[in-house]
Amino acid sequence: MFESSAQIRVRYSETDQMKVVYHGNYAQYFEAARAEAIRDMGFTYKEMEDIGIAMPIVELHTKFLRPALYDDLLTIKTQLRAMPKDHRIEFHHEVYNESGKLLTVGRIVLYFLDAKTMARTVMPEALKKHLEPFFTV
Amino acid sequence: MFESSAQIRVRYSETDQMKVVYHGNYAQYFEAARAEAIRDMGFTYKEMEDIGIAMPIVELHTKFLRPALYDDLLTIKTQLRAMPKDHRIEFHHEVYNESGKLLTVGRIVLYFLDAKTMARTVMPEALKKHLEPFFTV
Amino acid sequence: MFESSAQIRVRYSETDQMKVVYHGNYAQYFEAARAEAIRDMGFTYKEMEDIGIAMPIVELHTKFLRPALYDDLLTIKTQLRAMPKDHRIEFHHEVYNESGKLLTVGRIVLYFLDAKTMARTVMPEALKKHLEPFFTV
Amino acid sequence: MFESSAQIRVRYSETDQMKVVYHGNYAQYFEAARAEAIRDMGFTYKEMEDIGIAMPIVELHTKFLRPALYDDLLTIKTQLRAMPKDHRIEFHHEVYNESGKLLTVGRIVLYFLDAKTMARTVMPEALKKHLEPFFTV
Repeated sequence: MFESSAQIRVRYSETDQMKVVYHGNYAQYFEAARAEAIRDMGFTYKEMEDIGIAMPIVELHTKFLRPALYDDLLTIKTQLRAMPKDHRIEFHHEVYNESGKLLTVGRIVLYFLDAKTMARTVMPEALKKHLEPFFTV
Repeated sequence: MFESSAQIRVRYSETDQMKVVYHGNYAQYFEAARAEAIRDMGFTYKEMEDIGIAMPIVELHTKFLRPALYDDLLTIKTQLRAMPKDHRIEFHHEVYNESGKLLTVGRIVLYFLDAKTMARTVMPEALKKHLEPFFTV
Repeated sequence: MFESSAQIRVRYSETDQMKVVYHGNYAQYFEAARAEAIRDMGFTYKEMEDIGIAMPIVELHTKFLRPALYDDLLTIKTQLRAMPKDHRIEFHHEVYNESGKLLTVGRIVLYFLDAKTMARTVMPEALKKHLEPFFTV
Repeated sequence: MFESSAQIRVRYSETDQMKVVYHGNYAQYFEAARAEAIRDMGFTYKEMEDIGIAMPIVELHTKFLRPALYDDLLTIKTQLRAMPKDHRIEFHHEVYNESGKLLTVGRIVLYFLDAKTMARTVMPEALKKHLEPFFTV
């Protein structure tokens, strides 16, 4: 398994009048955390696009357990639990507050697509090599 | 079943550099459509808060089938497929573009909470009366 | 002068924990209203991009007089007070609530750019022809 | 003068189909930078609200010189150039990219308000004491 961790400070704009983080903003937190996870893999999502690969999100599943509050320093864990076997990659996210309480869990499925043809493709070789050590017994 | 329909014009701010609507923004579309659905039920979510009921989202599930583009006039269908039996209410959303293509589907679970105590409560009686005719055989 | 009007319903996501519309979201309201104004001119901003013209915002000035609230149906007036003489175009926006109270005023300066070269260009001829009658004495 | 600096990584959600940061998102960057500036002053905006002071934005002026791009690590300088003399406080922001290029400048005016009565008030004494050394000759 590959695991990575990122920190995000809740912005005022991300709260709503219920005085908590608006539920729709977690997609952005997951995405920011995923960008850091890919950076920890020795790659960046920006490079992915530069070499012609797009990674659209095809599924997003989120459970909201406890609210995040303004100015909270959140820790977001990102897990890749299995090496992708085809065009499909799945990430798990967990959001914790400073007291270590689990606030939100997310599961996101993305595809590897050729950005020009929009045909399905697979994980770039360079990224695959970087990840394989995390998935060997 | 109660069904309602709302239209939303895609804003420039809602696109990302993949030149499609950013996946995280559908939560906002669903919410705007849900607000119109509740208005069609003869109530408003604003009134719900005014009488002391909060409806936090506890689950959000989304599948992204096709992209929505800038300036698309989207039609969002909102369905309440069953009368809530307790503190839990579940909505289904479908997003269509002007060609009638299904772009995105969503399933959202919310709770009825007493805004002061945060204790679970049930659907307000006035709303329940309004909805019952849609669920009688 | 060319004037146009658009209506926007405040979304829950657009509020913040001060229980008003987050100030940063007015840029999106202005932009949505501007898109409707351009549509009223017999053109769309989408077509502008299709014919290779980009219109980046270079200045944004906003004064916030009164708050907008959740579920408010806002009316946004957009004015083009003078025909652009070069690569520069300036819009004025005013946001009103349902009681007719003026909430926010904005002034936005955009450039006409050739999307490929990023060189300054001028308003497309077709749009110019459509607008001229509004500026003749 | 009081000056402070904060770093922000551009999120994918913050780009638009012009492949740059959407202009409306700078308000959020400024606000996040201002929150860090207030933290550097030995206070937090959260505490400000806790002691009953609200700081609504009443003016926002922004000039966009160069675009910020996805995954850019931006440096945002926040300056308080003069001690507030009344209910009014003014911040200046400058956004730089990793090459040290100035991308955006902002000037924001906020009021100190009593959150309960919405009457104008002044900077809390504790914050004032912390800031005074920066403004003495």
